[in-house]
Amino acid sequence: MGLNQQHEATLRDTVRRLSDTDNLTNICPSQWQGQPLPSQQAVKEIIYLSRALIFPGFFGDSDVTRNNVTYFTGLWAEKLYHLLVDQIHAGLSMDICTDTAPDYDEMEHKAAEKAAEFIKQLPNLRRLLNTDVYATHRGDPAATSTQEVIYCYPGIRAICNYRIAHELIKLDVPIIPRMISEQAHSETGIDIHPAATIGEGFTIDHGTGVVIGATAILGNNVKLYQGVTLGAKSFDMDPDGNPIKGIPRHPIIGNNVIIYSNASILGRITIGDNAIIGGNIWVTQNVAPGERLIQAKANNVLRIKQ
Amino acid sequence: MGLNQQHEATLRDTVRRLSDTDNLTNICPSQWQGQPLPSQQAVKEIIYLSRALIFPGFFGDSDVTRNNVTYFTGLWAEKLYHLLVDQIHAGLSMDICTDTAPDYDEMEHKAAEKAAEFIKQLPNLRRLLNTDVYATHRGDPAATSTQEVIYCYPGIRAICNYRIAHELIKLDVPIIPRMISEQAHSETGIDIHPAATIGEGFTIDHGTGVVIGATAILGNNVKLYQGVTLGAKSFDMDPDGNPIKGIPRHPIIGNNVIIYSNASILGRITIGDNAIIGGNIWVTQNVAPGERLIQAKANNVLRIKQ
Amino acid sequence: MGLNQQHEATLRDTVRRLSDTDNLTNICPSQWQGQPLPSQQAVKEIIYLSRALIFPGFFGDSDVTRNNVTYFTGLWAEKLYHLLVDQIHAGLSMDICTDTAPDYDEMEHKAAEKAAEFIKQLPNLRRLLNTDVYATHRGDPAATSTQEVIYCYPGIRAICNYRIAHELIKLDVPIIPRMISEQAHSETGIDIHPAATIGEGFTIDHGTGVVIGATAILGNNVKLYQGVTLGAKSFDMDPDGNPIKGIPRHPIIGNNVIIYSNASILGRITIGDNAIIGGNIWVTQNVAPGERLIQAKANNVLRIKQ
Amino acid sequence: MGLNQQHEATLRDTVRRLSDTDNLTNICPSQWQGQPLPSQQAVKEIIYLSRALIFPGFFGDSDVTRNNVTYFTGLWAEKLYHLLVDQIHAGLSMDICTDTAPDYDEMEHKAAEKAAEFIKQLPNLRRLLNTDVYATHRGDPAATSTQEVIYCYPGIRAICNYRIAHELIKLDVPIIPRMISEQAHSETGIDIHPAATIGEGFTIDHGTGVVIGATAILGNNVKLYQGVTLGAKSFDMDPDGNPIKGIPRHPIIGNNVIIYSNASILGRITIGDNAIIGGNIWVTQNVAPGERLIQAKANNVLRIKQ
Amino acid sequence: MGLNQQHEATLRDTVRRLSDTDNLTNICPSQWQGQPLPSQQAVKEIIYLSRALIFPGFFGDSDVTRNNVTYFTGLWAEKLYHLLVDQIHAGLSMDICTDTAPDYDEMEHKAAEKAAEFIKQLPNLRRLLNTDVYATHRGDPAATSTQEVIYCYPGIRAICNYRIAHELIKLDVPIIPRMISEQAHSETGIDIHPAATIGEGFTIDHGTGVVIGATAILGNNVKLYQGVTLGAKSFDMDPDGNPIKGIPRHPIIGNNVIIYSNASILGRITIGDNAIIGGNIWVTQNVAPGERLIQAKANNVLRIKQ
Amino acid sequence: MGLNQQHEATLRDTVRRLSDTDNLTNICPSQWQGQPLPSQQAVKEIIYLSRALIFPGFFGDSDVTRNNVTYFTGLWAEKLYHLLVDQIHAGLSMDICTDTAPDYDEMEHKAAEKAAEFIKQLPNLRRLLNTDVYATHRGDPAATSTQEVIYCYPGIRAICNYRIAHELIKLDVPIIPRMISEQAHSETGIDIHPAATIGEGFTIDHGTGVVIGATAILGNNVKLYQGVTLGAKSFDMDPDGNPIKGIPRHPIIGNNVIIYSNASILGRITIGDNAIIGGNIWVTQNVAPGERLIQAKANNVLRIKQ
Repeated sequence: MGLNQQHEATLRDTVRRLSDTDNLTNICPSQWQGQPLPSQQAVKEIIYLSRALIFPGFFGDSDVTRNNVTYFTGLWAEKLYHLLVDQIHAGLSMDICTDTAPDYDEMEHKAAEKAAEFIKQLPNLRRLLNTDVYATHRGDPAATSTQEVIYCYPGIRAICNYRIAHELIKLDVPIIPRMISEQAHSETGIDIHPAATIGEGFTIDHGTGVVIGATAILGNNVKLYQGVTLGAKSFDMDPDGNPIKGIPRHPIIGNNVIIYSNASILGRITIGDNAIIGGNIWVTQNVAPGERLIQAKANNVLRIKQ
Repeated sequence: MGLNQQHEATLRDTVRRLSDTDNLTNICPSQWQGQPLPSQQAVKEIIYLSRALIFPGFFGDSDVTRNNVTYFTGLWAEKLYHLLVDQIHAGLSMDICTDTAPDYDEMEHKAAEKAAEFIKQLPNLRRLLNTDVYATHRGDPAATSTQEVIYCYPGIRAICNYRIAHELIKLDVPIIPRMISEQAHSETGIDIHPAATIGEGFTIDHGTGVVIGATAILGNNVKLYQGVTLGAKSFDMDPDGNPIKGIPRHPIIGNNVIIYSNASILGRITIGDNAIIGGNIWVTQNVAPGERLIQAKANNVLRIKQ
Repeated sequence: MGLNQQHEATLRDTVRRLSDTDNLTNICPSQWQGQPLPSQQAVKEIIYLSRALIFPGFFGDSDVTRNNVTYFTGLWAEKLYHLLVDQIHAGLSMDICTDTAPDYDEMEHKAAEKAAEFIKQLPNLRRLLNTDVYATHRGDPAATSTQEVIYCYPGIRAICNYRIAHELIKLDVPIIPRMISEQAHSETGIDIHPAATIGEGFTIDHGTGVVIGATAILGNNVKLYQGVTLGAKSFDMDPDGNPIKGIPRHPIIGNNVIIYSNASILGRITIGDNAIIGGNIWVTQNVAPGERLIQAKANNVLRIKQ
Repeated sequence: MGLNQQHEATLRDTVRRLSDTDNLTNICPSQWQGQPLPSQQAVKEIIYLSRALIFPGFFGDSDVTRNNVTYFTGLWAEKLYHLLVDQIHAGLSMDICTDTAPDYDEMEHKAAEKAAEFIKQLPNLRRLLNTDVYATHRGDPAATSTQEVIYCYPGIRAICNYRIAHELIKLDVPIIPRMISEQAHSETGIDIHPAATIGEGFTIDHGTGVVIGATAILGNNVKLYQGVTLGAKSFDMDPDGNPIKGIPRHPIIGNNVIIYSNASILGRITIGDNAIIGGNIWVTQNVAPGERLIQAKANNVLRIKQ
Repeated sequence: MGLNQQHEATLRDTVRRLSDTDNLTNICPSQWQGQPLPSQQAVKEIIYLSRALIFPGFFGDSDVTRNNVTYFTGLWAEKLYHLLVDQIHAGLSMDICTDTAPDYDEMEHKAAEKAAEFIKQLPNLRRLLNTDVYATHRGDPAATSTQEVIYCYPGIRAICNYRIAHELIKLDVPIIPRMISEQAHSETGIDIHPAATIGEGFTIDHGTGVVIGATAILGNNVKLYQGVTLGAKSFDMDPDGNPIKGIPRHPIIGNNVIIYSNASILGRITIGDNAIIGGNIWVTQNVAPGERLIQAKANNVLRIKQ
Repeated sequence: MGLNQQHEATLRDTVRRLSDTDNLTNICPSQWQGQPLPSQQAVKEIIYLSRALIFPGFFGDSDVTRNNVTYFTGLWAEKLYHLLVDQIHAGLSMDICTDTAPDYDEMEHKAAEKAAEFIKQLPNLRRLLNTDVYATHRGDPAATSTQEVIYCYPGIRAICNYRIAHELIKLDVPIIPRMISEQAHSETGIDIHPAATIGEGFTIDHGTGVVIGATAILGNNVKLYQGVTLGAKSFDMDPDGNPIKGIPRHPIIGNNVIIYSNASILGRITIGDNAIIGGNIWVTQNVAPGERLIQAKANNVLRIKQ
């Protein structure tokens, strides 16, 4: 149960090496000057509370009823506010971690403003997500009710996190939005960058492997299946051979477009309204409105009869 | 630490808007008449307990030994029973959420019957899952023991949830089975609809991105690799242009079929016994028993030498 | 609230059947002789603590500062040591579960040696993972800081677990490494076998669906996108028609290779240094150093204009 | 870590003996017919919530502010209601544990009525307890504020539990009131039987060892110090030599009476209004209004000088 | 939120001083050689489990029913066994903390023997405690049922801990028995030394302030009220003026003796069978069987009429 | 499970009445202006951490060893610092709850100063408490080791809280010290006002019912038994008939004084060095150095022989 003396020494020595702050400062200067880091646990709670506020009973405490919905909502909103203030503050601190003399009071004030502004948008986020829920129910023969969609469709969870994170992006909150979308990625296998722009009535079915890049723009009533990539084709490189950050490099998808499973749409191309992209297809050029791309006869498959 | 007055007002106003039950009634009438909603946390516990009962020690408390296995099993079974009664009841309530005067006592009685019936099937579920475990061990050169298969193969977890959920489907339990399979989807990236029909000795390797549709039928000793879709090719539409629900639209897979990674089998086609489908292949037509489909020479790939 | 008498009988009977240790002994003899089984919860804590020690503040408690980093590190390291001793011991016990008279004291001694040796490697694991973090930041135009990479890139989590698990594989620890990598698979959709050999500066973007087999060898500065498979093409079978275990069957990838999304590299082939494999490509033959494989014109896609 | 075989057998045998329900039925028949027993943990929560509702912020969550007091209060009240329904039901079941066919539905209905009625009394309980707080503050030179009295005076906690329990006694709730007052006894050393009758402005200082019997009656503005007993002098015995239950046997204390530390007032005597009983005094006869009993010169103490 | 630099230095310096093991070794040498100390939390769990095993449903989980009593009992007994082994081991280690080379393996073996032996005595402890419960119910007019006695009488809790601790004393377990009885003292205000010898049918009413010394001997059917001391009159001193340990110095109480509140019985005197000692009386000489001591007329009280 | 409509209305109405902040403002104005109230839970943690820092292993985590004592101590000290800052701040806010415009920033600064100063005193508190431990061990024939004294003597816990609280009193911290001493009172039945002045080597045996008033002064090596009161005899009243606060009114006890069980020493009298006060004695006049007061022959007890 105890440690033998040699292992004691090993632990002591390793602890010393791992705790050397000079060594750690490379990773994040702000942390080692006493500023708090964002907390993954807090971000999980932010997601939990936001979902509970948007879909009470489906997420959060399932005991919500008409009698107590105001009480639950009231406490959730206040808790969310405080968590957001702290995490936005931490994000802002980290964002300027090379600065010399940040004004942390000003930063906290800004964090509180952004937190309140976010909460103000929650009713609108509920409205938007309801368009997604209804579109999903309408479009999937396996969906028996809108309730099932909210409970069981990973697409709704991923879109929910996207819409939350996107709202924070609009408020210039650093890092936290990406942590929120990455949580949805882990939960659902759907990776939507929070900077992407996505219209109403958005549907993702099954969803595992879906990737939507940071500069992608999607219209209303778009529907994606599992494995669809809305990605970059190539990066513009700087003189050192590293990709230049911030250039539009992902596709623009029109209204009412359907993209079937495992299709890849790559580069700053445009898929016109009402287009349909078949499964497993690789698209690197514009598609006209109403156009339909399908797999041709599978001429590179050998059938070996026994 | 406190809220400034303006933010207080923002929160108060947002809480009021989010708690407006008229607005919420659209989502689920039953909830706002005081009936409980299904609880995602409870469903997680149902999965946890069912797995623990089927594979004691591997799932659930790892302190299970020959001395205490009866005691653990006894408490798990009783707890599972009570959780199932509540969740099945909640599912039944929600299912009829447009009804005017449901008989909740009758509903609770039915829920208890279904819960007991499910628990009665657990020994058979263990037997079935053992066929999956042995098939996986036999078929994968990287698997060193059946223990490793139970601990480390996401396929086993996904199939376990599927078999649990399918049993509940057979008992006409609404929504809960889908919540159970979606949990496995989130955990493993494997999305098996609980209404699918799957034989013994079923194997999924790696598994991320696998999709098996609601009307699919699989024989015994089927083996799938990651990214395989057993999906629908198209939906029959009703006059309003929405998919008609409930029509058989997914493939029928024979015994001893192997389907390699990222292949897509689409539509109500039949893959005959002992057939082999190569990786990345798109199949929309019947495959004969024993037939083998493989990638032809990669004639659409350019090799650019430097 | 109580059980009716018939359900009581059902539960009692099912508990009896599920607790029958004769039946259970098939699964794991060691367990039913009183030896502990590995615990999934403990393995999760091992991952949590290892990550916290490597990236303090980013994982584990976010309150780590320069004032307390030694204290946190000290307690984490000791807790990790004890968890590892128990789990390695459990793994060793299970590994020999057919033996007749194992020496459990010797086994515990060995487990403690391995645990201490692992902890000694943590500073080196931090160094290695930092090469992965910097490579990811350099190579992705969407990454705004190395902090964002550590917080938000699933690739880093998967590689982190891989490097931890691989270290344990080198110490001949059974089963636990696979449990660790499977946790990362569940969390990220990235499935790296801990026995694979991977160089420094390794990058995975998005990552869902990536599979890297047990005998794969990767050089330095390799970059993979989502859905890439480094898999086996076929297995050598023994006379009973089962795959022979332990044969090298996965590809060797050179330095500075980039492999785009959903490409499959299959079999014991070699991809030369600096090669680039385009998205969605199926590769089963060697690729020369510097060679570039891209999708040819999509000649099997039909464009149907309306 | 495991058990040796002999100890296994010991445990198994002892478990068998301890689980023998025939043996247990002596203790409580109702329990072994499937009815729930009162839960000590639930009773603790009932106390916790009642105190929080009466003195928000002082007990319960200290984050209560003007912004959220309605939300906290709302959830606490609802939770208290449900706990009370269950515990009152359990108490009623146990009370009739010799009956043959109790109507449990009727019992639950009654439990709900009593729970609602109790909650309705909470504002009045707050009013009453405020008289106790103000009296305590006024009467103790060491009390610096009413806040200190609520936080730090065990008397207030004991009186609070008494007033809660007494309200339940008035509603004919069995056993639960005694569990509530015994909790206060454990917490404070003050043992007030919930059936006692106590007026407003009641003060207990220090309080350890105070005992107030079931049939005692106290007027307004009574003040007790530590160790005071308001007890029975003797019991009327039945023919078998056992005390007869239910006979008035404890004192009646008038208004504005002060009783100093360790005094014992025994039997159905009357202490008149405004009387003062000195410390350590043994009183078994009536005391007139305004009368003052003090220790005479300590004539039974020897002073031994060195 | 952070620490200012001066406070950082204060904390660092204080931590250094408090962690100086040279300084700490005075307190307990064994601890600083790596041996575990007894854990107060573990002792609390030992009490919790022992009580639950003796009075299932009243203590421990209140969900115990005839269906699951065996399962609960089984897990409680095993958990109790393991806790006892660890704590007895820790107690034995501490007991010999001045020794040079203790045999810890032998110690663990002994600890396991004692733990098993203790558990074997649980059915007998239940039998004994039932005599206490019935005696209490019979003797107190306020007790409405034996259930109320188990739930609400602090005397039963204190006697329960005493009987548990005394059993461990008989097994030569060091320190743990005193920790168990001190927990009861904290919970009830009743301080019974575990080395005292107490017969069946023991009753304590109210109990706050009761003290029973280590060498006291009580017969059957003894009844004590609050504040009774069965103490030492004086200590035999060694040449240094310190009390000599281990000498019989507390009273011997016969069968069927009743001692009323706040009486003090001091020294190695004998109170004969069936004697009655009145409240507040100071007794330092033998009392004959059947003798009755009562307060004479309160001749040292002044009555001051107004 | 739901509420009937009438009970819903009852709850809603009661919640409204209990949440009326006008009504609540009487209790504490500061709270309802958004300032935090002291938290009983936080005060419990302050006690827990202070005890753990003073007696590591005996209180707090029992896994403390020479290897990790620095790490545990470091984290405990920092956590204690932050808890103290918050609670002292809350105490200061409440203390001035009638003020109009307090400077909360200044208050937080002062709270941090006091917290750091308190922590600086911890090594001295350990030294002082060790004198109490050794005195207790020396003076009690039942104490087998100093370890037993720390684990099992309520006196040590009460004195520990007293010494902690007294240190905070010296730093002019409001309310928190009283909350700390009241926790000890609840745990041990020993009520020591934190403003009392107590020398080294202080011993309390058994302790239930001990009361030490706010203006009491005790020398070194004082020993008290259970039920001893060092109290006020009477209060000076103001013209309204209320006690005047702050006047010295409790006894002064010299060095090496022993006071036996249930003795009451009342008023601003002096008990000289080396005096001994017998049990159950009522003292309201000075006692000379070395004097010994004992119970005279029990001349007011009647012995009734049968």
